[in-house]
Amino acid sequence: MLFYEDLEIGKVSKFGSYAVTRAEMIEFASKYDPQAFHLDDEAAAQTHFGRLSASGWHTCAMMMAMLVENIQATEQAGLGSPGIDNLRWIKPVFAGDILRCESETTSKRRSKSRPEMGIFKTRTVVYNQNDKPVLTMESNGLIKVRE
Amino acid sequence: MLFYEDLEIGKVSKFGSYAVTRAEMIEFASKYDPQAFHLDDEAAAQTHFGRLSASGWHTCAMMMAMLVENIQATEQAGLGSPGIDNLRWIKPVFAGDILRCESETTSKRRSKSRPEMGIFKTRTVVYNQNDKPVLTMESNGLIKVRE
Repeated sequence: MLFYEDLEIGKVSKFGSYAVTRAEMIEFASKYDPQAFHLDDEAAAQTHFGRLSASGWHTCAMMMAMLVENIQATEQAGLGSPGIDNLRWIKPVFAGDILRCESETTSKRRSKSRPEMGIFKTRTVVYNQNDKPVLTMESNGLIKVRE
Repeated sequence: MLFYEDLEIGKVSKFGSYAVTRAEMIEFASKYDPQAFHLDDEAAAQTHFGRLSASGWHTCAMMMAMLVENIQATEQAGLGSPGIDNLRWIKPVFAGDILRCESETTSKRRSKSRPEMGIFKTRTVVYNQNDKPVLTMESNGLIKVRE
Protein backbone atom coordinates (compact mmCIF):
# COMPACT_ATOMS: atom_id res chain seq x y z
CA MET A 1 0.00 0.00 0.00
CA LEU A 2 1.06 3.59 -0.68
CA PHE A 3 0.60 5.74 2.46
CA TYR A 4 1.01 9.40 3.39
CA GLU A 5 4.71 8.87 4.06
CA ASP A 6 5.25 7.66 0.47
CA LEU A 7 3.81 10.72 -1.31
CA GLU A 8 6.59 12.61 -3.13
CA ILE A 9 6.19 16.35 -3.65
CA GLY A 10 6.77 17.33 -7.29
CA LYS A 11 6.27 13.83 -8.62
CA VAL A 12 4.19 13.81 -11.83
CA SER A 13 2.08 10.76 -12.68
CA LYS A 14 0.67 10.17 -16.16
CA PHE A 15 -2.23 7.77 -16.42
CA GLY A 16 -5.60 6.95 -17.91
CA SER A 17 -7.18 6.65 -21.32
CA TYR A 18 -10.90 7.39 -21.57
CA ALA A 19 -12.72 7.22 -24.90
CA VAL A 20 -15.59 9.72 -24.90
CA THR A 21 -18.69 8.47 -26.68
CA ARG A 22 -21.69 10.39 -27.92
CA ALA A 23 -24.05 7.88 -26.26
CA GLU A 24 -22.43 8.34 -22.83
CA MET A 25 -22.29 12.14 -23.24
CA ILE A 26 -26.03 12.26 -23.96
CA GLU A 27 -26.90 9.75 -21.22
CA PHE A 28 -25.04 11.80 -18.59
CA ALA A 29 -26.41 15.13 -19.83
CA SER A 30 -29.98 13.81 -20.00
CA LYS A 31 -29.82 12.88 -16.34
CA TYR A 32 -27.70 15.65 -14.82
CA ASP A 33 -27.15 18.54 -17.26
CA PRO A 34 -29.98 18.68 -19.80
CA GLN A 35 -29.02 21.99 -21.40
CA ALA A 36 -29.75 22.02 -25.15
CA PHE A 37 -26.08 22.47 -26.11
CA HIS A 38 -25.23 19.16 -24.35
CA LEU A 39 -28.12 17.25 -25.96
CA ASP A 40 -28.84 18.62 -29.40
CA ASP A 41 -26.47 19.10 -32.38
CA GLU A 42 -28.32 22.05 -33.82
CA ALA A 43 -28.58 23.93 -30.51
CA ALA A 44 -24.87 23.25 -29.88
CA ALA A 45 -23.90 24.59 -33.33
CA GLN A 46 -25.49 27.92 -32.43
CA THR A 47 -23.29 28.39 -29.32
CA HIS A 48 -19.59 29.14 -28.76
CA PHE A 49 -19.05 25.37 -28.28
CA GLY A 50 -19.59 24.90 -32.04
CA ARG A 51 -20.85 21.33 -31.68
CA LEU A 52 -22.20 18.86 -29.15
CA SER A 53 -19.90 18.76 -26.11
CA ALA A 54 -19.82 16.86 -22.83
CA SER A 55 -21.23 18.38 -19.65
CA GLY A 56 -18.34 19.78 -17.62
CA TRP A 57 -19.47 17.59 -14.72
CA HIS A 58 -19.30 14.57 -17.01
CA THR A 59 -15.69 15.49 -17.81
CA CYS A 60 -15.07 15.59 -14.02
CA ALA A 61 -16.69 12.16 -13.66
CA MET A 62 -14.58 10.69 -16.49
CA MET A 63 -11.46 12.22 -14.89
CA MET A 64 -12.45 10.64 -11.56
CA ALA A 65 -12.78 7.23 -13.23
CA MET A 66 -9.16 7.62 -14.41
CA LEU A 67 -8.00 8.91 -10.99
CA VAL A 68 -9.60 6.00 -9.14
CA GLU A 69 -8.11 3.48 -11.56
CA ASN A 70 -4.71 5.04 -10.80
CA ILE A 71 -5.36 5.15 -7.01
CA GLN A 72 -6.16 1.43 -7.15
CA ALA A 73 -3.29 0.50 -9.49
CA THR A 74 -0.81 2.27 -7.21
CA GLU A 75 -2.59 0.95 -4.06
CA GLN A 76 -3.01 4.39 -2.50
CA ALA A 77 -4.65 4.29 0.94
CA GLY A 78 -6.98 7.15 -0.10
CA LEU A 79 -9.82 8.35 2.14
CA GLY A 80 -11.68 10.70 -0.18
CA SER A 81 -11.42 14.43 -0.68
CA PRO A 82 -12.71 17.49 1.18
CA GLY A 83 -12.75 19.59 -1.98
CA ILE A 84 -11.36 21.10 -5.15
CA ASP A 85 -9.88 24.50 -5.99
CA ASN A 86 -9.64 26.25 -9.33
CA LEU A 87 -11.60 23.76 -11.39
CA ARG A 88 -11.45 25.02 -14.99
CA TRP A 89 -13.11 23.65 -18.11
CA ILE A 90 -10.62 24.97 -20.63
CA LYS A 91 -11.80 23.38 -23.87
CA PRO A 92 -14.98 21.54 -24.80
CA VAL A 93 -14.85 17.73 -24.78
CA PHE A 94 -16.33 16.12 -27.87
CA ALA A 95 -17.46 12.62 -28.83
CA GLY A 96 -14.45 10.70 -30.14
CA ASP A 97 -12.00 12.46 -27.83
CA ILE A 98 -9.56 10.27 -25.89
CA LEU A 99 -8.80 11.78 -22.49
CA ARG A 100 -5.78 11.17 -20.26
CA CYS A 101 -4.46 12.68 -17.00
CA GLU A 102 -1.31 14.13 -15.51
CA SER A 103 -1.22 14.70 -11.73
CA GLU A 104 1.44 16.33 -9.60
CA THR A 105 1.54 16.17 -5.79
CA THR A 106 2.20 19.78 -4.76
CA SER A 107 2.08 19.65 -0.94
CA LYS A 108 1.30 17.39 2.02
CA ARG A 109 0.78 17.69 5.78
CA ARG A 110 -0.53 15.59 8.70
CA SER A 111 -4.09 16.31 9.85
CA LYS A 112 -4.17 17.99 13.26
CA SER A 113 -7.69 16.85 14.15
CA ARG A 114 -7.23 13.32 12.78
CA PRO A 115 -3.60 12.24 13.22
CA GLU A 116 -4.28 8.94 11.44
CA MET A 117 -4.75 10.92 8.22
CA GLY A 118 -2.61 13.06 5.96
CA ILE A 119 -3.88 15.83 3.68
CA PHE A 120 -2.21 16.41 0.32
CA LYS A 121 -2.72 18.69 -2.65
CA THR A 122 -2.58 17.53 -6.24
CA ARG A 123 -2.70 19.51 -9.47
CA THR A 124 -4.38 17.49 -12.20
CA VAL A 125 -4.60 18.28 -15.91
CA VAL A 126 -6.87 16.32 -18.26
CA TYR A 127 -5.61 16.33 -21.85
CA ASN A 128 -7.35 15.31 -25.08
CA GLN A 129 -5.78 13.25 -27.87
CA ASN A 130 -4.23 16.42 -29.34
CA ASP A 131 -2.38 17.05 -26.05
CA LYS A 132 -4.57 20.09 -25.39
CA PRO A 133 -5.65 20.59 -21.77
CA VAL A 134 -9.43 20.34 -21.44
CA LEU A 135 -9.68 20.51 -17.62
CA THR A 136 -7.40 21.57 -14.77
CA MET A 137 -7.99 21.42 -11.02
CA GLU A 138 -6.24 21.43 -7.67
CA SER A 139 -7.61 18.76 -5.36
CA ASN A 140 -7.28 18.15 -1.66
CA GLY A 141 -6.90 14.49 -0.82
CA LEU A 142 -6.99 12.47 2.40
CA ILE A 143 -4.77 9.43 2.83
CA LYS A 144 -3.95 7.03 5.66
CA VAL A 145 -0.74 7.41 7.62
CA ARG A 146 1.28 4.16 7.69
CA GLU A 147 2.21 4.01 11.37
CA MET B 1 -35.87 35.16 -21.22
CA LEU B 2 -33.60 36.25 -18.37
CA PHE B 3 -30.44 37.92 -19.73
CA TYR B 4 -27.23 39.38 -18.31
CA GLU B 5 -28.95 42.70 -17.66
CA ASP B 6 -31.54 41.01 -15.44
CA LEU B 7 -29.09 39.39 -12.99
CA GLU B 8 -29.38 40.99 -9.53
CA ILE B 9 -26.33 41.02 -7.27
CA GLY B 10 -27.15 39.71 -3.79
CA LYS B 11 -30.33 37.98 -4.85
CA VAL B 12 -30.72 34.53 -3.25
CA SER B 13 -32.68 31.82 -5.07
CA LYS B 14 -33.90 28.69 -3.31
CA PHE B 15 -34.77 25.75 -5.52
CA GLY B 16 -34.63 22.03 -6.11
CA SER B 17 -35.50 18.82 -4.33
CA TYR B 18 -33.45 15.75 -5.15
CA ALA B 19 -34.10 12.43 -3.44
CA VAL B 20 -30.84 10.48 -3.18
CA THR B 21 -31.26 6.74 -3.71
CA ARG B 22 -28.90 3.92 -2.88
CA ALA B 23 -29.35 2.47 -6.38
CA GLU B 24 -28.34 5.72 -8.10
CA MET B 25 -25.40 6.25 -5.71
CA ILE B 26 -24.04 2.80 -6.50
CA GLU B 27 -24.71 3.14 -10.24
CA PHE B 28 -22.77 6.43 -10.41
CA ALA B 29 -19.93 5.20 -8.21
CA SER B 30 -19.59 1.93 -10.15
CA LYS B 31 -19.04 3.89 -13.34
CA TYR B 32 -17.05 6.91 -12.18
CA ASP B 33 -15.83 6.54 -8.58
CA PRO B 34 -15.50 2.85 -7.68
CA GLN B 35 -13.78 3.34 -4.33
CA ALA B 36 -14.88 0.73 -1.80
CA PHE B 37 -16.41 3.31 0.58
CA HIS B 38 -18.82 4.40 -2.20
CA LEU B 39 -19.81 0.83 -3.13
CA ASP B 40 -19.70 -1.39 -0.09
CA ASP B 41 -21.41 -0.97 3.31
CA GLU B 42 -18.75 -2.78 5.27
CA ALA B 43 -15.84 -0.88 3.71
CA ALA B 44 -17.70 2.41 4.29
CA ALA B 45 -18.33 1.56 7.95
CA GLN B 46 -14.57 1.29 8.47
CA THR B 47 -13.90 4.86 7.24
CA HIS B 48 -14.61 8.34 8.63
CA PHE B 49 -17.76 8.43 6.45
CA GLY B 50 -19.35 5.87 8.81
CA ARG B 51 -21.63 4.42 6.14
CA LEU B 52 -22.14 4.26 2.39
CA SER B 53 -22.04 7.79 0.94
CA ALA B 54 -22.38 9.30 -2.52
CA SER B 55 -19.34 10.11 -4.64
CA GLY B 56 -18.62 13.83 -4.29
CA TRP B 57 -18.85 14.08 -8.08
CA HIS B 58 -22.28 12.47 -7.92
CA THR B 59 -23.33 15.19 -5.46
CA CYS B 60 -22.07 17.75 -8.00
CA ALA B 61 -24.08 16.03 -10.74
CA MET B 62 -27.25 16.01 -8.59
CA MET B 63 -26.68 19.71 -7.79
CA MET B 64 -26.30 20.41 -11.52
CA ALA B 65 -29.62 18.68 -12.22
CA MET B 66 -31.26 21.10 -9.76
CA LEU B 67 -29.36 24.11 -11.17
CA VAL B 68 -30.39 23.30 -14.75
CA GLU B 69 -34.01 22.81 -13.71
CA ASN B 70 -33.85 26.28 -12.16
CA ILE B 71 -32.05 27.80 -15.20
CA GLN B 72 -34.83 26.45 -17.39
CA ALA B 73 -37.68 27.39 -15.05
CA THR B 74 -36.40 30.98 -14.88
CA GLU B 75 -35.55 30.97 -18.63
CA GLN B 76 -31.94 32.04 -18.12
CA ALA B 77 -30.02 32.53 -21.38
CA GLY B 78 -27.09 30.53 -19.95
CA LEU B 79 -24.05 29.60 -22.04
CA GLY B 80 -22.23 27.19 -19.74
CA SER B 81 -19.45 27.76 -17.25
CA PRO B 82 -15.67 28.23 -17.49
CA GLY B 83 -15.12 26.84 -14.01
CA ILE B 84 -15.67 26.51 -10.28
CA ASP B 85 -13.80 27.85 -7.26
CA ASN B 86 -13.73 26.55 -3.70
CA LEU B 87 -15.75 23.40 -4.26
CA ARG B 88 -16.14 21.80 -0.82
CA TRP B 89 -17.77 18.51 0.16
CA ILE B 90 -18.67 19.43 3.73
CA LYS B 91 -20.73 16.46 4.86
CA PRO B 92 -21.28 13.01 3.34
CA VAL B 93 -24.48 12.50 1.32
CA PHE B 94 -26.38 9.34 2.22
CA ALA B 95 -29.16 7.30 0.62
CA GLY B 96 -32.49 8.76 1.72
CA ASP B 97 -31.18 12.33 1.86
CA ILE B 98 -33.26 15.01 0.15
CA LEU B 99 -31.04 17.73 -1.30
CA ARG B 100 -31.94 21.33 -2.14
CA CYS B 101 -30.02 24.42 -3.28
CA GLU B 102 -29.56 28.07 -2.42
CA SER B 103 -27.70 30.26 -4.91
CA GLU B 104 -26.64 33.90 -4.63
CA THR B 105 -25.35 35.98 -7.53
CA THR B 106 -22.26 37.70 -6.11
CA SER B 107 -20.86 39.64 -9.11
CA LYS B 108 -21.25 40.23 -12.84
CA ARG B 109 -19.37 41.86 -15.72
CA ARG B 110 -19.45 42.00 -19.53
CA SER B 111 -16.93 39.83 -21.36
CA LYS B 112 -14.21 41.89 -23.06
CA SER B 113 -13.34 39.29 -25.68
CA ARG B 114 -16.98 38.29 -26.37
CA PRO B 115 -19.22 41.34 -25.90
CA GLU B 116 -22.33 39.26 -26.61
CA MET B 117 -21.72 37.47 -23.29
CA GLY B 118 -21.72 38.39 -19.63
CA ILE B 119 -19.77 36.58 -16.90
CA PHE B 120 -21.26 36.24 -13.43
CA LYS B 121 -20.30 34.58 -10.16
CA THR B 122 -22.69 32.58 -8.03
CA ARG B 123 -22.23 31.07 -4.59
CA THR B 124 -24.24 27.87 -4.26
CA VAL B 125 -24.91 25.83 -1.13
CA VAL B 126 -26.48 22.36 -1.28
CA TYR B 127 -28.37 21.46 1.90
CA ASN B 128 -29.71 18.14 3.08
CA GLN B 129 -33.13 17.58 4.69
CA ASN B 130 -31.71 18.60 8.09
CA ASP B 131 -30.72 22.01 6.65
CA LYS B 132 -27.05 21.05 6.98
CA PRO B 133 -24.79 22.20 4.11
CA VAL B 134 -23.30 19.21 2.30
CA LEU B 135 -21.61 21.08 -0.57
CA THR B 136 -20.60 24.68 -1.29
CA MET B 137 -19.04 26.19 -4.40
CA GLU B 138 -18.49 29.43 -6.25
CA SER B 139 -19.24 29.10 -9.95
CA ASN B 140 -18.47 31.27 -12.93
CA GLY B 141 -21.35 31.43 -15.40
CA LEU B 142 -21.72 32.76 -18.95
CA ILE B 143 -24.99 34.32 -20.05
CA LYS B 144 -26.26 36.11 -23.16
CA VAL B 145 -26.53 39.89 -23.21
CA ARG B 146 -30.01 41.04 -24.26
CA GLU B 147 -29.15 43.76 -26.77
